[in-house]
Amino acid sequence: MRRVAVIGGGHTRFVTHSPNTSLELLAEASMDAIANSNISPKDIQAINCGNVLGEFTDGQGMIQSYLADDIGCNHVPATRFEGACATGTIAVRDAAIQVAAGVYDIMLVAGVEKATAMDTPLATRTFAMFSDSRYENPAGFTFPAVFAMLCHLYASHYDIPLETLKEQMAQVSVQSHYYGARNPNAQFQKELTVEKVLNGPMVTTPLQLMDCCPFTDGAAAVILASEEMARKLTDTPVWIAGTGQASSGHLASQSRYLPRIRARELSVKQAYKMAGIGPEDVDICELHDCFSIASIIAAESLGFAEFGKAGQLWETGETKIDGKIPINISGGLKSKGHPIGATGVSQVYEVSRQLRGDLADQGRQVDGAKVGLVDTLGGDGVIVNLVLKRD
Amino acid sequence: MRRVAVIGGGHTRFVTHSPNTSLELLAEASMDAIANSNISPKDIQAINCGNVLGEFTDGQGMIQSYLADDIGCNHVPATRFEGACATGTIAVRDAAIQVAAGVYDIMLVAGVEKATAMDTPLATRTFAMFSDSRYENPAGFTFPAVFAMLCHLYASHYDIPLETLKEQMAQVSVQSHYYGARNPNAQFQKELTVEKVLNGPMVTTPLQLMDCCPFTDGAAAVILASEEMARKLTDTPVWIAGTGQASSGHLASQSRYLPRIRARELSVKQAYKMAGIGPEDVDICELHDCFSIASIIAAESLGFAEFGKAGQLWETGETKIDGKIPINISGGLKSKGHPIGATGVSQVYEVSRQLRGDLADQGRQVDGAKVGLVDTLGGDGVIVNLVLKRD
Repeated sequence: MRRVAVIGGGHTRFVTHSPNTSLELLAEASMDAIANSNISPKDIQAINCGNVLGEFTDGQGMIQSYLADDIGCNHVPATRFEGACATGTIAVRDAAIQVAAGVYDIMLVAGVEKATAMDTPLATRTFAMFSDSRYENPAGFTFPAVFAMLCHLYASHYDIPLETLKEQMAQVSVQSHYYGARNPNAQFQKELTVEKVLNGPMVTTPLQLMDCCPFTDGAAAVILASEEMARKLTDTPVWIAGTGQASSGHLASQSRYLPRIRARELSVKQAYKMAGIGPEDVDICELHDCFSIASIIAAESLGFAEFGKAGQLWETGETKIDGKIPINISGGLKSKGHPIGATGVSQVYEVSRQLRGDLADQGRQVDGAKVGLVDTLGGDGVIVNLVLKRD
Repeated sequence: MRRVAVIGGGHTRFVTHSPNTSLELLAEASMDAIANSNISPKDIQAINCGNVLGEFTDGQGMIQSYLADDIGCNHVPATRFEGACATGTIAVRDAAIQVAAGVYDIMLVAGVEKATAMDTPLATRTFAMFSDSRYENPAGFTFPAVFAMLCHLYASHYDIPLETLKEQMAQVSVQSHYYGARNPNAQFQKELTVEKVLNGPMVTTPLQLMDCCPFTDGAAAVILASEEMARKLTDTPVWIAGTGQASSGHLASQSRYLPRIRARELSVKQAYKMAGIGPEDVDICELHDCFSIASIIAAESLGFAEFGKAGQLWETGETKIDGKIPINISGGLKSKGHPIGATGVSQVYEVSRQLRGDLADQGRQVDGAKVGLVDTLGGDGVIVNLVLKRD
């Protein structure tokens, strides 16, 4: 298998109520990625596209074929992936395998969503379709309820007072907004305080509004290339050194393992092993903070803290750019935003920019970052992880 | 790259109004495929799943994760593909690449749709989302209209009287029903006559009801394995010897090439080249007959007849089991049925059974078939082709 590099990327601003269609957003991010990678559309040999709700938001399925056509990538294979919130990362991982296998030398991976094309009731109902629609979401067990339950399980399992856990969770959101305020692509560029989080409206006990990521419109794109092509096109290739993916099905089948997510532990183990690293080697991580508690749970499965102790990472500032393990320096899903099909691609874009040292101007560069980790959760238990490395 | 084989498959009956959910249909086909391949669920290392309209028909997205969980393939990577009617074939091709690359040794590919969970008006509106939703389908240019236009273009371009073309098209449907009547998995197991086709209700001039494939519920599954595993598990591996995929975007961008479909010509060329064969080597073909005219157009792009002359293949019986190029001996989409996300997987299942010589009991075995071709069209212009070979 050949080495595969991210050689460039593109990113729309993540916003509420974009005036553009999903196809226009995809084209904007893709054309930026192409330009930033010193290639032209005719160099793209295949496209992987992530989009979850295009039928509902744009009345358009199979958007990948129209993207290829619109940006001048005529007649290339174009494939759409759907894995709920992990959609974009699945599309990147699949492309990495195809380039590694020698099927293609240069691929475009682009993801998009226009989640705010739907109002909140409709978005809630369509999002719920990506949990178990037989027994779980019909019982009111939508994602906010799932993560609220995980808070209670976590507090009880590790014997942490719920109020203590809530303060740790608030620190997660405060940090996300601190860095989001420094990310020009972020949906919310405004700092928060712990008080503001804890005094916000209750969504589902104990999750308050500022524990929850928003609905978002936006797109992101990256260009993957074989080592031979990457060496010709850039001086700063970012290698996809390891990948992992696992599925856990509906929550009831995970009940004996929760609040730990077994799929994540299996997935990241694959990715670390393939890359020949451990969690101690990671300099920058973008992880799936759909809710503040999700960050704490993820950080433990990824190996950055003992189980039951990850909240302390945020309390003590170890997740900041000069901490032991900088996490979600983009603002994360909470502040950068969460356009579902784009989220994983955006994480890869962000980590690769950190590894290239591109973000000093924005006041959020992790100095000397060499190894990055991407972590994305889809639905109740699909996990994808990618280890990125610079030379 | 390693050789990859289809080692077994499973198939529900294709029906109108299945009482089962999409997940139940997927599980039925998948468990049959697993049993027929002499493996157990724990041998499956990854799952590719094809499903287009699950959000509308079952209120369930990300069905792949629940499939993995329900059939005992715990924690494997499970990925969903959407490429309109070509969804299943895209999922098979992607899996073939992953096994060839050595990422996995054994994969399950399963596709499903419950198109008749929607009534005809809703199915029509949701299907239309897989054509161009900006300029084309809002103008009434849904798929029946697209293929009706292709009839007129074809008749005019090749100077064939429309009535002659319509009689050739009727022969396509008559043959499909002849073989469908012999396929226990087919939705319609009843023979047709040319008169019945030509006297049927008009859908959109010149397409009559019996020129059009139905909406269908059903699932199909196949197991792919590396050569090493295949040799251990079966005496009759069917090799995936060549693959191709191409996208053409919306119809307006193809206007100068129509009624020929350029994506198909590019895709099948890739597949033939990779397999080291030409159209003259193909013993059995399952091609995408969503409308009778689609069969005629496809047969030409695939190299089985000169452009403008494929209708004669059906008129003269060359597409029957003892003809020059047996086509859609399953009954095709017209008679076997067209559960969108399952269709491509069903085509692979059918061709692999023909190459194994399994169908003599059904009176539709192509004697001594060694090389098969799968052709699937998604939307207006996504094509996937697979060349299958037995030893």
